[in-house]
Parts: sequence; C-alpha cells; structure tokens
Amino acid sequence: MLNTLTNALCVSLQMYGRYTQELGVYAKEEAARLRESGQRRSVSDRSRTLDLLEYDKGRCAKCRTQKWMYGGLDSNVFLQYLAWVTYPVVLITFSAGFTQILAPQAVGSGIPEMKTILRGVVLKEYLTFKTFVAKVIGLTCALGSGMPLGKEGPFVHIASLCAALLSKFMSLFGGIYENESRNIEMLAAACAVGVGCCFAAPIGGVLFSIEVTSTFFAVRNYWRGFFAATFSAFIFRVLAVWNRDEETITALFKTRFRLDFPFDLQELPAFAVIGIASGFGGALFVYLNRLIVQFIRKQKAINRFLMKKRLLYPALVTLLVSTLTFPPGFGQFMAGKLTQKESLVTLLDNRTWAKQGIAEEFDYIGQSQAWKHPQVNVFVTLVLFIVMKFWMSALATTIPVPCGAFMPVFVIGAAFGRLVGESMAAWFPDGIHTDGTIYPIVPGGYAVVGAAALSGAVTHTVSTAVIVFELTGQISHILPVMIAVILANAVAQSLQPSLYDSIIRIKKLPYLPELGWGHHEYYNIRVEDIMVRDVRYITLNCTYRDLHNVLLTGHLKTLALVESAESMILLGSIERAQLQSLLSLQLGRPRRLEYIKERATAEKKRLSVVSNPSSDDGSHRASQEVRFQVRGHCRSRIDRMESHPFHLCLMGCNLRKIAPQTTERIAEWEEMQLDEQVNFNNCKIDPAPFQLVERTSLHKTHTIFSLLGLDHAYVTSIGRLIGVVSLKELRKAIEGSVTVKGVKVRPPLASFRDSGTSSSENEATELHKLWDRHKSMSLPREHTPSESDEKSQ
Amino acid sequence: MLNTLTNALCVSLQMYGRYTQELGVYAKEEAARLRESGQRRSVSDRSRTLDLLEYDKGRCAKCRTQKWMYGGLDSNVFLQYLAWVTYPVVLITFSAGFTQILAPQAVGSGIPEMKTILRGVVLKEYLTFKTFVAKVIGLTCALGSGMPLGKEGPFVHIASLCAALLSKFMSLFGGIYENESRNIEMLAAACAVGVGCCFAAPIGGVLFSIEVTSTFFAVRNYWRGFFAATFSAFIFRVLAVWNRDEETITALFKTRFRLDFPFDLQELPAFAVIGIASGFGGALFVYLNRLIVQFIRKQKAINRFLMKKRLLYPALVTLLVSTLTFPPGFGQFMAGKLTQKESLVTLLDNRTWAKQGIAEEFDYIGQSQAWKHPQVNVFVTLVLFIVMKFWMSALATTIPVPCGAFMPVFVIGAAFGRLVGESMAAWFPDGIHTDGTIYPIVPGGYAVVGAAALSGAVTHTVSTAVIVFELTGQISHILPVMIAVILANAVAQSLQPSLYDSIIRIKKLPYLPELGWGHHEYYNIRVEDIMVRDVRYITLNCTYRDLHNVLLTGHLKTLALVESAESMILLGSIERAQLQSLLSLQLGRPRRLEYIKERATAEKKRLSVVSNPSSDDGSHRASQEVRFQVRGHCRSRIDRMESHPFHLCLMGCNLRKIAPQTTERIAEWEEMQLDEQVNFNNCKIDPAPFQLVERTSLHKTHTIFSLLGLDHAYVTSIGRLIGVVSLKELRKAIEGSVTVKGVKVRPPLASFRDSGTSSSENEATELHKLWDRHKSMSLPREHTPSESDEKSQ
Repeated sequence: MLNTLTNALCVSLQMYGRYTQELGVYAKEEAARLRESGQRRSVSDRSRTLDLLEYDKGRCAKCRTQKWMYGGLDSNVFLQYLAWVTYPVVLITFSAGFTQILAPQAVGSGIPEMKTILRGVVLKEYLTFKTFVAKVIGLTCALGSGMPLGKEGPFVHIASLCAALLSKFMSLFGGIYENESRNIEMLAAACAVGVGCCFAAPIGGVLFSIEVTSTFFAVRNYWRGFFAATFSAFIFRVLAVWNRDEETITALFKTRFRLDFPFDLQELPAFAVIGIASGFGGALFVYLNRLIVQFIRKQKAINRFLMKKRLLYPALVTLLVSTLTFPPGFGQFMAGKLTQKESLVTLLDNRTWAKQGIAEEFDYIGQSQAWKHPQVNVFVTLVLFIVMKFWMSALATTIPVPCGAFMPVFVIGAAFGRLVGESMAAWFPDGIHTDGTIYPIVPGGYAVVGAAALSGAVTHTVSTAVIVFELTGQISHILPVMIAVILANAVAQSLQPSLYDSIIRIKKLPYLPELGWGHHEYYNIRVEDIMVRDVRYITLNCTYRDLHNVLLTGHLKTLALVESAESMILLGSIERAQLQSLLSLQLGRPRRLEYIKERATAEKKRLSVVSNPSSDDGSHRASQEVRFQVRGHCRSRIDRMESHPFHLCLMGCNLRKIAPQTTERIAEWEEMQLDEQVNFNNCKIDPAPFQLVERTSLHKTHTIFSLLGLDHAYVTSIGRLIGVVSLKELRKAIEGSVTVKGVKVRPPLASFRDSGTSSSENEATELHKLWDRHKSMSLPREHTPSESDEKSQ
Repeated sequence: MLNTLTNALCVSLQMYGRYTQELGVYAKEEAARLRESGQRRSVSDRSRTLDLLEYDKGRCAKCRTQKWMYGGLDSNVFLQYLAWVTYPVVLITFSAGFTQILAPQAVGSGIPEMKTILRGVVLKEYLTFKTFVAKVIGLTCALGSGMPLGKEGPFVHIASLCAALLSKFMSLFGGIYENESRNIEMLAAACAVGVGCCFAAPIGGVLFSIEVTSTFFAVRNYWRGFFAATFSAFIFRVLAVWNRDEETITALFKTRFRLDFPFDLQELPAFAVIGIASGFGGALFVYLNRLIVQFIRKQKAINRFLMKKRLLYPALVTLLVSTLTFPPGFGQFMAGKLTQKESLVTLLDNRTWAKQGIAEEFDYIGQSQAWKHPQVNVFVTLVLFIVMKFWMSALATTIPVPCGAFMPVFVIGAAFGRLVGESMAAWFPDGIHTDGTIYPIVPGGYAVVGAAALSGAVTHTVSTAVIVFELTGQISHILPVMIAVILANAVAQSLQPSLYDSIIRIKKLPYLPELGWGHHEYYNIRVEDIMVRDVRYITLNCTYRDLHNVLLTGHLKTLALVESAESMILLGSIERAQLQSLLSLQLGRPRRLEYIKERATAEKKRLSVVSNPSSDDGSHRASQEVRFQVRGHCRSRIDRMESHPFHLCLMGCNLRKIAPQTTERIAEWEEMQLDEQVNFNNCKIDPAPFQLVERTSLHKTHTIFSLLGLDHAYVTSIGRLIGVVSLKELRKAIEGSVTVKGVKVRPPLASFRDSGTSSSENEATELHKLWDRHKSMSLPREHTPSESDEKSQ
C-alpha cells in the first residue's frame, strides 16, 4: 500500500512540476492523451485517491507561499504583484481549460448533480472516468491558486465517481454489484466519504451528505456511510502522522478553549444574534451567487465575447480577486496574505485580539500578525475581510472550474463570529459572569459558532454543527452552535433555496422542490387539479400504425397500455424504446429480406427462362449492401433523436438507390405491415406502474414521488386511466402555489373545495357511474348472481 | 414559567413525601383517583415535564444516599442491611403495582412500541394519559430504587406521550394538527426529544432515535428533531444552572482528558479489541435478556405462582440484586455503594488507577475510593463489577416496571473499557509513544470507548458514539470510538437482533424484520412465491348474502373489490367496517321499522274492523322498545368482536320476545333483503390500494413495505388480482430464509429460478395469455381496428 502511495505521490509531484510549462499546450496534450487512453487505467482505491488529493492541495498551498515569500522579490513591489497575480491566473486558467476540454461535467460542486442522481435521474456523463480525471486535476489546480474556493462539493463528486467506477469494475465479476439499487447505496455511502475525508469529520460527513443529497433516507445505508467515512477520515489523518506533520491523530483545526467554563448563559443572546444574522447572510450569498450567474447569462454582448474566449472569464475574475488581495496593496487591510486554511486557524484562536478595545495590547504571534495593521483597528480589518470575501466567494464560485463554496462560506462565517466575539470582549472586558471568578469572553468560540451558522444557512443543513465539532476537536460550545445553526436555518430557509437547490435550478436539472412549511394548501390541492388529462396510450389490440402515430406525436419515455379505448382499464406501461424495437422488428431488415427473398423466388420462377439468374443475384447483393449502409446511418440518427420513428427514415433512404418498382413494392409491403395488429409477446411491459387516485392530495403525491423516486405516475379511477402526473406538473403545482411575488398559479378547481366533507359523496357518485356502466355496458358477459354466489362461497 | 415549575416541583416533592406511607394502599388510592379524574388534566409542556422527571430522579438518588449514610445505622450491620434492602424493594414493588393497576402498557422501555407505532401500526393504548401518568410515576420510583435500570427508553415513550396528547389537544383547535401524517412527524420529533434530554445530547438524541425507531427517514423531519431536542437539552441543563448545581451549561459527565495527545496510533488495536469484545458482549446481553423472559414464561409452575402474586417477582429480583450489592457484604468487591451515576463519573476519570500495576499508589479521592479494596486488586473489582452487573442488568430489565436498559449497559461498557485501559496502563507505564515526550495512557478514554461500543452493540446503533461525545463534552477520542462502535455493531448485528427488536419479538408486536447483509436470495425470491393466492374478494355486482358470507369466513381488515369473478380486475379495496355498516344499513332498524310500519298499515287495512287498533299499536311500541334494547346490546358486542356479522345476532335476539309469526315474517324479509344486489354508493372505497407485480423481488417488496408503512399489498398481473401479501407472509419469508439454525423454509419455487434471464419470456407468456383471453373472451364488445385507429390518432 505504501508503495502505491509513494508512486502516486511521485506522479502528482511530476505533474506539479509541469505547471511551469506552457500550460495551454500541456492542457491540450494531456487531454488528448487521456482521451485516447480512455478507460484503460484501473480504478484506484476510493479513499486513498481522495486523501492524496487533499495531500496534494496542502503541498500546493505550501509551495505557493514559499514561492512568493522566498522569491527574493521583496525589493520590487511591481514584480511582487506580478508574481502574486500570475500564479493564480495561470492555475485557474489551466484548470478551466483542462476541464472544458476533457469533461465539462466536472465543472462546479457536483453536489447538485449527485442529489439529482440519487433522486433516481440518470445523468450518465457525470460518472465517467474522464470526468474523474478532469475533476481531480482541475480541483487540484483551482485549490492551489489560493482563490476563495472550496473542496467539499468536488470531494463528494470524486468519491461518487470512485464508487461508480468501482461498481462498474466489480460488476465485471457479477454478483450483487449488478443490481442497480446497490449502486445507489454505494453512491450514498460515497457522498458521506467525500465530506468525511474533506474535513476529517466522519459523523458530520455522513449527516451532511444525507441532508444535502437525500429526501428520504434508508437507515440501513447509514451504517455503511459511517463505515466508509470513518475509514476515509482515519486514513486521511494517518497520512498526516506518517508524514510527521502531527504526532497523533487529532482534529484538523484543533482549538484549545477552556473546558470548565466555555461560555456564560448570558452570552446566549449574542450567539442567537450570530445565528439570525448568518441566516440573512446565507440567503444573501445564495441570491448573490445566482444573480451573478444570471447577469452573465443575460448580457448577450458579454456572453458572446466570453463564449468566444472561454478562458477569459476565469482569468479576469482571478485577476480581480488576486489584485484586491495583494498584501502590500488593499490586501493589507483584509489579511490578504493568509491562505484560507491560515485564516481559519487564526480566526479560531482562543486568545482575544482586542483587549479592552485596544488592539495593540495583544501579542500577535505568527500568522495572527496579518490581522494587525498599524493604522487600522482590528475591527475594521475584520469587517473589510468579511465584506470583500463575501462577494469574492460568490463571484469565484461562478468560475467554470471544479470548486465548492462550503469552505469560503465557512471562513466568512468564522470571521463574522470573531467580529461579534471581539466586540463582546471589548464590551465586557472581564466577562459577564458575576460570581467571584473572572471568565473572560472567548472570541474563538464565537468564530466557531459563526462558521457553523453561516455554512448551515447557505447549505440549509444542521449538521454543520457536527462538522465544526469534529473539525475543532471540541464540543464544549454545543448549545450555542446548535441554537445559532437552527436560527440561521430558520431564517435562510424561509428566504432562499439552499445553494445546491439554487444551482439545480440554474442548471435546469430535473428536480422536485421541497415543500415549504405551513403551506396548508398542499392538503387541499388534488392530483386531479394538476394532472394531464390527455394521456398518450396504446390499446392491447392496436395496429402498428397506431403505434407509429403515437410514437410520432409524443415525447414521453413510457406509454400507458390500456385494455381498450372504451374501458380504459390500465394494464401496464411500456417504454418507448420497446415500442420502437417492436416497430423496427415488424418493418426491419430480417423480415424485409425474407419478403424480398420470397418475392425473388416468385420472380425467379416467373422469369426463370428469360433472364440471367446470376445478374439478378448480383443486383440483389448490391442493393442489400447499400441498404445496410443506410441502415447503419439511420440507426445512429435514431439513437440521437429517439422521437423519430424508425421506418420513415428507412423509407426515405431507400428511395435513392433502388429501382422505383422495388420501392413501390416495399412501400406497399410496409403499408400492409402497418395494418397488422401489434404482437406484444416480445415486449417488456411494466405490469404495475405507479398509480394514484384523483383525490390524492399534493402533499401525499409529493411524499410518494420523493420516497420512490418516481418520474411519473398514472391517475386511475377504479381501474380506469384518467390522467398522468409527471415531475413537471408536480413542480409547477408546488412552485405555483409557493411563489411569493407574482401571480399565484393556483389550480382552478382547488378553491372550490373545502376540507373534504363532500369527498365520500364524490367517490360514491364516481362509483355509481361505474356501477351503472358495468350494468349497462358489459351486459353481454355478465353472469347470473347465483353463479357469483357459488364462487365467493 | 418559573411559577409553574415550582408548583410542579412542590407536587413532586409532596409525592415523594408520601413514599414513606403505606405504599400498597397509596398505590391503589392513587390509581383509583387518577382513573376517575381521567383525561381532565391539561397536558403540560413536553420538555418541561421530562426535565422535571430528570430532576426528581437526581433528588431521589440524593435522598437515598443521605437516608442510608446519615441514618445512624453505622453500628449495626443488620439494620444497615435492612435499610439498604427495604428501600429499593418497596420502591420497585410500588412502581410495579402502580403501573400494573393504572396502565400495564407503561411497563418496559417503550422504544419497541414507538418503533411499531412509527411503522404505521396503531397501538392506541400506548399513547393515553393514563399510560403517561403510570410511566412518569413508575419510572421515578424505579430509578430512585438504585437498581441497574435505565431511563432513555421510558423518556422516549414519555416524550411521545406528551407529543400525542399535545396533538390531541391542539386538534381541538383544528387546522394542521388534524392531519394524521402530521402526528407521525410529531412523534418522530418527540423520540428525539426523549433521548436528547435524557443525556443532554441533542445531536446524539436525534440520531439515536432515528436509528432505533425508523427504517426510512424523511430528512425534512430531521430539522424538527434537532429543534425540539436542542431546546429540551438546553432547558434540562439550564435548570442545573438555575439550581446552582453548575456555573454554566456544560456536559453531563464532563471529562478532562488531555487534548494535545489524546491517544497513540499504536493504541488503536486495543480499541478495536474493545469493539469486538463489546460486540460479543452486546449480543450475549440481548440473548440473556430474552432467555430470562422465555424461561420465566415457560416454567408453568413459577409462572402460575408469579401470576397470582404479581408483585412477588419484582420484589424477589430486587431483593437478590440489592443483597448482592450490599456494600459491607459482597458489594465491597464491586463498588456496590456507588449509584449508577457515581460509577460512571469515577469510570470516566482521567487519572490512572493502577499505576505500574500497583493499585495502592493512586490517591483515591471521594467516590473513587469505592473501587479500592484493601485486599483485592482493582482489576478484580472491575471484573467482578462487570460480571455481576451484566447479569443483574439483564435480569433487572425484565422486571415489569417502566425502565430501559441503555444506561446499565453503558456503565458496564465503561467498566469494561476501563479494565482494558488500566491493563494497558499497567502494561505500558510510560505510554507507547517513543519520541521524546512521555504520554501516559489514559484509561478514562478507554472507558468512553467501551461505553459507546457496548451500548452500540446492544441497541445496534452507531450514534452512541455521538452520545458519548455530548455526554463527556470531549470529542478527542472520535476515531477510536467510531472504530470500536462500528466493529461492535458488525459483530453484534451478525449474531443477534437488537435489544428493541428482541423485545418486539417477545411481545409479539407486528413488525417487519430488517434484511440482513449479504443475503442474495432476497433478490431471487419473488412475491409470487410467498403470496396468498386464495384472496377474499367481493365483486361489483355481488349480493348482500355474498357480503355476509365473506364477512363470516375471513378476518382481514380490508377486502378486495374486483370487477367480476371472471375478469378479476382489481378496482379497489373496502374496509371491513364499511361492509359491516352496509349490511347493517340494509337490515338495520330504520328499514325494518319502515317494513313493519308498512306491514302494520296493510294489516290495519285488512283487520280494521275485527281487532282493536290501540292494542296493536301498543304491542308494536313494546316490541320496538325491546328491539331497541337488544340492538344496543348487540352493538356493543359487535364493537368488541368485529368479525361477528351484525344481522345474525339481531336475528337471535329478536327470537326471544317477539311473537313467532312476526319473527317468521322478519326472517323472510331478511332473506329477501339478503338477495338484493349491494349498493356501494354510500361506501368508502380505496380506489388505489397498493399493488405489486408477481415478479417483484422480496428485497424490493421489503423496501416498499417499510417505505410506505404498508400492512398488505395486492398482487396483480396486468390488472387482474392474483394474490395478496401481508406483513405476516413477508415476515415469514424473510425469517424463513434467514434462520441460521433449523430448517430453512425457503419458498418451494425459489430454487428453480436463476438470476432472471428467463424473466422477459415469462412476462411475454403471461401477456400472451391475456391477449388470447382478450381476443377470445371479450369478443362481444370488441370493436373493429379502424375504430380504435380513429381514437388513438
């Protein structure tokens, strides 16, 4: 194991060395090389890769600091600036370019995509080996640039990629890995691993991944997540020990707050204030992030320009951010020279920076010095840091590189907490507690609370509380953290969607919005109000022509199969692909060849004396070859645009090279074939598609859809198909009645109904109809009551 | 709020004062009083009650110690013994008696019942006000006795009781609380509150309650659980501050391990050993507990005796346990004088007891002295403590009082961990770490690991890890704890069910066993192998006689409604009660009276000259009154035994007092009525009962049943009802193929099938049949292809 580790390390270091090469060229070379090598490489162990990634990042950050600090550029500010700016611009540009060329799916956090995939939607390109490579290399460079970018989202994605590739690899050996629900379970565990080894927080990782990716969670997966996350966190931290960075396994950002009196009860209002303010801040962050994306999309001039030079936007943003953080410039007022990790370490420090309001008294050691400015108060530095980092992070996370937003938000939250804490410390220099002992206020504790609250508000999770405990190795502030996180969540959830849901909407991924709280109307809206009544269906005794027509008009993936157009009794559903193959089977090559052979034999018999049989055979072979070619062509086109029915294209193609007489005959034959009744024998039918009743409430429908990961459900009334509801309708209905501004698109019938006293009446009427129908319509096959008596006795 | 708090406190103290009264008398009085007062009392705030409970307990324990310590009984060992033994025996006996009289449902932990209720099964008596009172008072006494009993299970039950009563109370005001799914959500949050305020562990509480009670968890409830649990934990700890017990809010069992070097990497194998051993220990505990219950049930002689004197068993067990822990007696070798809380505090101490193998060197302060015995080594004390407490706890939790097993197991685990830790400390007196600084081994850390591992093994949960962090206020041992808990779970889960599942089985509650790991056969067993093929159904055009017959023969709660006995197309399901009311409506009093009136009018016309009209009227009125009385009688009987059809009883009753002629006529009339066709108009039908396909795998069926909390599902084949699967069949199938010893009851057809290559064939054949059926049978109402063409175009 150690051997492979060192090997992998060497590779990554070698890779690192190449960064100084011409990057554009290298990116293209690398991309081409990888594209060719394809899936050849074996999938390495999941957690190990992630740890290496983490490891790389640390090294990059170190090199970066070294490069600048000991670069001998102290004398010349301009050279210093050039070095400070060039480095991140080159790295980000390379990362953006590499990702763009190799796998554009690797851009961004990956959590929204994972949420969609775990919801049951297939997004296949997001779990390929190419995406894996692009994500790993792109992320390494992006993090090394020192921009305010996070890594927890990409880690989740990378872990899921590992799991998916591992499943694919293992399924070669057969067995349990072939089962698809097993793969979903693997992915759920992988998400936990991703967060777990990012923060060395196994418990928080599991919980965070559950909150972020799931709507309903199978408790039996819980154990698996813990197992995987514990080992990933363990190996991640063990590497630090082996590397002699640490003496033993401890927390990543260890704090040393006092244990006997962590905080006073009277400080709780201050913590609550942090929570509420973080809630507003979190909502603002999500809003700002969405605004930037939408602004850039809308401005057509900018957009066209940026599209042409795809790498310009990342470069420009990086240039702006790194210019503003340049330490001798504006950066001196916002601790610009600290990396993200260093900022966090200093913010969580247990010493007070501003004793009695005078910042100078504190003995700033090491990196904490960055926060001290000779002219400016430490409060101003903190406020500037928060404000600048806030918009910078919101802007930086829109760059098309693999990156998350958790860590930047976490740091901003910590800075905000620290600000409140320092203010409290300045306000109550001797602490609040009045009985005897003096317990000064610990601003570091406020920083922990702020970090958890803001990151919780942005992601709409409560488990950030657990993450901070595991990250700092101290749990003494549990109550303040919990209270702040809950308040932050309450505020943020009522203002904005979570960052991940926001990205899902921006990217237009298929999703199901969560039901908000206290919307009682969900109980009053019924499925019948939102369903599509004009359902595409096929009957059991339909012809191929019907099939063809249905395939031509609709775009649904599955079609309902009913007994007959009158009874409309739902028998099952058939996938579009199945129907297409039925059609192509009916009109396909083998049957066509057979027909042609038959015709040829008949012709031969007729013309056996007149013509030369060998020439006929030759032309037959030629036409056959041509047809084969166009067939291949058609097939790929069909695969691309599935809605196109198969045989039309075939007909069109055939018209070119074949004699008009033959064409006519074939067309005739095709018409004949189309009038035959469909034989469903070789067709896979789902005999129990999910059914709802027309009176099911929207609330219940939502629950069922998210529980079972449904894509659509048929609405039946006592066996008869009367409508269909898909994710789209459901989404519209929920958002329609949720929208705060604008017109409420409430279903037209919803208001006519009250709490449901008339429900039994309606049902009775409905049944009455059926009963009457049954009596009148199906009389021919009705039997005498005595007969049914015998049966049921 | 303070006011109500103090009021409640006064009440509880008053109650406490009464303990010294004649307890048997008091129990009866109290029970009678409460029974009369019924539901009159208003439901107090959930968390407050729980906190008070906790508070009471602390006070009881204190009083108990005081009573004995300062009782002036130092001189006489016999009197000391009497005082030591009488106190718990009286308390436990009172608790058992009180619970038995008021609400036997309050006995035991309550978590198994909550799991069943959250699964969707209605266990109504478990959530009444009576149970609440019995549980609170019973638990207070049981805990005060000092027996090795826990409180986390009862707390969960009490919190759920509060939630249920609160929901009931709130539903008076209407609104959202009327919705039943809302109540389930309330209960889920309440479970979190129960654990949360028991250990002042909000996060661990939420997770533990999820693991213990749910199979599938709605993430949207998660937030609610955290909210409730945080406030309950907060108020619980705030009370301690207000009570001047603590200076500020801290952990319940605060530890003070060193933070810089909590453990060495090389100690991890020792932690792993603790985990594995705890796994075996946990399984043994569950097995032992079940064995004791089954032994007592089986021994008929013992059983009969104990049944007669219900309070004898608790008294005997308490006598045995308290005799063995008597400090001057055997108790001196097992720290018998310490309460559960004191033992835990000493076990988690950060000092080492056995330095260099010689216990004497350690300066035992305060309660730690109990572990020191002049003649006996501290290791022997620990081993004795573990062994004795192990069987005592397993025995004590079988006493019929409100009690849990978590805390005793937790303490045993801590003792085991301490034992390993002390051994390690004795083995490596200078610690394992070799570079420079000496870091001695911290046996307290081992105790934390042991406690989490053993309690995790017994309950099959991972979240005990989080609970110990919150309980001790330190998270530094996170990796050892996680590793040990995971290993313990792995071992225990493969050997025994969890304690709660074991109790569910013992109590024969309706449940669905979890699917174990690695049982691939679940994917091969199909629903068709386990379903009941002989389904009770009613047809749309059946007569009341059919209805009557179906009701007579079956005992199912719901019946399937099919179109006709030939087509067997499933239209919906009807509840038994609905059918019964249909029957009683048809043969009921109003229609009967109408008939009699009609008859009377006819008679009158006929006999208007001959007889005296007033006498006829009088007899009519008399018979009417009689009939009313017997009707009322019958009704209550029916309510009790639902399976009994209504009108038979009516007929029997009527035979007594009414003239034979009238009876005959009525019987005739009833026969007539029975032959009429059923009118389903006033009947509530569930038009979309859950349907499965016959080829659904057992694994998927299990998932769907536990996701949706189903009780039964119909198996349909392309619309036709072919079977039904209920919880019972599913349970049998899972347990049949799981059973390790004994014959495997694998479904007969399962082995004939392989991974499913023939599945499409089968389906095709099935459809083929239907298609043929459709063609041949329903010819009368078939239409020409052209007609269907027009429709679908």
